[in-house]
Amino acid sequence: MNKIYLDNASTTAINSEVLNEMMPYFNSVYGNASSLHSFGRDAKEAAEQARQRIANAIGCLPSEIYFTSGATEANNWAIKGIAHANSHKGKHIITSKVEHESILKACEELEKEGYKVTYLDVDKYGLVRLDQLLHNINKDTTLISIMSANNEIGTIQNIQTIANIAREKGVYFHTDATQAIGSVNISVSDMKIDALSLSGHKIYGPKGVGALFLRNGVAIEKFMVGGEQEKNLRAGTLNTPAIVGLGKAVEIACRDIIANAKKMSSLRNYFIKEVQSKIDMTFLNGHPIQRLPNNINFSFGMVEGESVMYMLDMQGIAVSTGSACSSGSIEDSHVLKALGLAEDLVKGGVRFTLSKSTTKEELDIVVEELIKVIKKLRKISPITKAQVGKLKK
Amino acid sequence: MNKIYLDNASTTAINSEVLNEMMPYFNSVYGNASSLHSFGRDAKEAAEQARQRIANAIGCLPSEIYFTSGATEANNWAIKGIAHANSHKGKHIITSKVEHESILKACEELEKEGYKVTYLDVDKYGLVRLDQLLHNINKDTTLISIMSANNEIGTIQNIQTIANIAREKGVYFHTDATQAIGSVNISVSDMKIDALSLSGHKIYGPKGVGALFLRNGVAIEKFMVGGEQEKNLRAGTLNTPAIVGLGKAVEIACRDIIANAKKMSSLRNYFIKEVQSKIDMTFLNGHPIQRLPNNINFSFGMVEGESVMYMLDMQGIAVSTGSACSSGSIEDSHVLKALGLAEDLVKGGVRFTLSKSTTKEELDIVVEELIKVIKKLRKISPITKAQVGKLKK
Repeated sequence: MNKIYLDNASTTAINSEVLNEMMPYFNSVYGNASSLHSFGRDAKEAAEQARQRIANAIGCLPSEIYFTSGATEANNWAIKGIAHANSHKGKHIITSKVEHESILKACEELEKEGYKVTYLDVDKYGLVRLDQLLHNINKDTTLISIMSANNEIGTIQNIQTIANIAREKGVYFHTDATQAIGSVNISVSDMKIDALSLSGHKIYGPKGVGALFLRNGVAIEKFMVGGEQEKNLRAGTLNTPAIVGLGKAVEIACRDIIANAKKMSSLRNYFIKEVQSKIDMTFLNGHPIQRLPNNINFSFGMVEGESVMYMLDMQGIAVSTGSACSSGSIEDSHVLKALGLAEDLVKGGVRFTLSKSTTKEELDIVVEELIKVIKKLRKISPITKAQVGKLKK
Repeated sequence: MNKIYLDNASTTAINSEVLNEMMPYFNSVYGNASSLHSFGRDAKEAAEQARQRIANAIGCLPSEIYFTSGATEANNWAIKGIAHANSHKGKHIITSKVEHESILKACEELEKEGYKVTYLDVDKYGLVRLDQLLHNINKDTTLISIMSANNEIGTIQNIQTIANIAREKGVYFHTDATQAIGSVNISVSDMKIDALSLSGHKIYGPKGVGALFLRNGVAIEKFMVGGEQEKNLRAGTLNTPAIVGLGKAVEIACRDIIANAKKMSSLRNYFIKEVQSKIDMTFLNGHPIQRLPNNINFSFGMVEGESVMYMLDMQGIAVSTGSACSSGSIEDSHVLKALGLAEDLVKGGVRFTLSKSTTKEELDIVVEELIKVIKKLRKISPITKAQVGKLKK
């Protein structure tokens, strides 16, 4: 059985061009980038080239890129590090209810420390309520963090507008661009973004590596202490192979953005149309247009998303419910809840995320299997057709 | 010119067996270990196998192993995480003056928060003063952290004794075993160690990955927040390829410990004898016997270690002064200073660290080059022979 992987928002297979670029750094150019001898200088040069590539791709200076172990670290660091380093100006942070857990939980930790955090609502498409944003900025606000695009429902936020508001009000603006890189054009200088998190493994790059863009001049607390790497702000031996891979992955993602977006959004639209025309009570979550080219998130009436996921898995098809990070836990998706969906539709959410190599043939197979799965599940559903979209906790 | 790499305490080339084991996890078994479908389960299984391998190697349960981005993270987490989670019992930590910067600076951060930290002295060989340890434990002491073996001078601490003292006094004991794994036999259960840090890239494994062993029952604060990975204590997508590599590298390091130690210590002793017999005013730093099999640290009278390093580098020979992490900074080695060396001998320190594939032929070349380099440098030295070992700051 040829397996079909439609969970590319969780993680992607590494691009062979990226992997090839990484290989020499495992056992040939293997020095410690902090060492002063030739082995170290070669490693450092490779890391600096990666820094330059990322800077070119997102429109900043290489000195504004800090390598991390991933987007979770970059998000934890940005939220807590900027809040702490600017606490003399105020202790109020603004974010949204649909952020990734690494943002939300970092904010919760700040609340325990005495900070005030405003969690903005979103509209029914998942767009952050800009009226609430404007209303909530006050003299104590030091940081606004809004994701560029949502990992579950694919909604692309109006980042440019939010960044403009933040700049005008003199508040730092951070965006978690983990899902947006390679799908949404981002120039941090043009858009006046002060900090941005990104990850390797969501864009056909390696796991275990990410980066934080931090505009020069923005104060931040150190994340880890030890060696004086990353301008003495983030200690730890540079992970050269992964950093090289990240640089290449970001370069490719931003280079191919138009072609990939065109190809994937066309397949996405085809899939949405096919499923909605062949399976009744299929509701698309997220924004109908302003969404990631590879994201489809459906709530199927009368079924649980988890059952759909398991039954498709038995057919070799990988999809997701909620985000991967919180799978294993039985909590409902905080994103679908924030959209205001009825309880049964929150539970009925299933995410399909395409890769740049997903084919129409694969999607046709998925549609066929999905029809069977939904039919089976609806036969044994405890929910009636009349109840769909009406159940509340 | 064939280069010779004698800076294996900074980082090592990856073992081909380790790299081969990692490869499928980049683009074949590439799922997110938190995903519930088959791609995710396969990734999780690989991570769990790595956890089991490390547990087997150091004598603990797999559930006591937490993956991190490296030893710096593991050290930061252990020191601050255990101190914070046990602050209701007391706010006193004991460590030593020769620890890695990631321990020392984490302790300094605790001091800023109001904790009291005792930094134990070492004797002239770098062994922690056990009398001071006993004298300084008090009712507020919650954690003792002493490295298993020193990264600069190779001195192996009396970890078993320290662990016994800690256990008897009801204080947690953490050890940074980054340099010791693969050279020193460690069983955390037999030795009653409560927490231990280790790293991949010091033992022919991948960079960007490490682990913290934490005995079940020891309270620790979360390190990063977000997804519920690692028993909800360390968020972030598991870096499966690197984790698989770490598991294999630890397995091999502990399996081959006797053969490697025998081979390397024999070459080490040969090198020490050759250099000391051919270059006068060569002083061995660290313990003469109780030292890592691959570590040689010399202070050469009348020369600066940094000059030796650069001149050997021009001949394609990589050695180090101080630890790699603090290179780039011009500060003197805190370890050599703690030994009580005269100022000129602190500055004259050079570290040679062998790998398991270092050959006698390579060492013979290094001895020849070293003789020339030292001779040249001594000709232009501002220090006289009579001043050697007598200069103080």
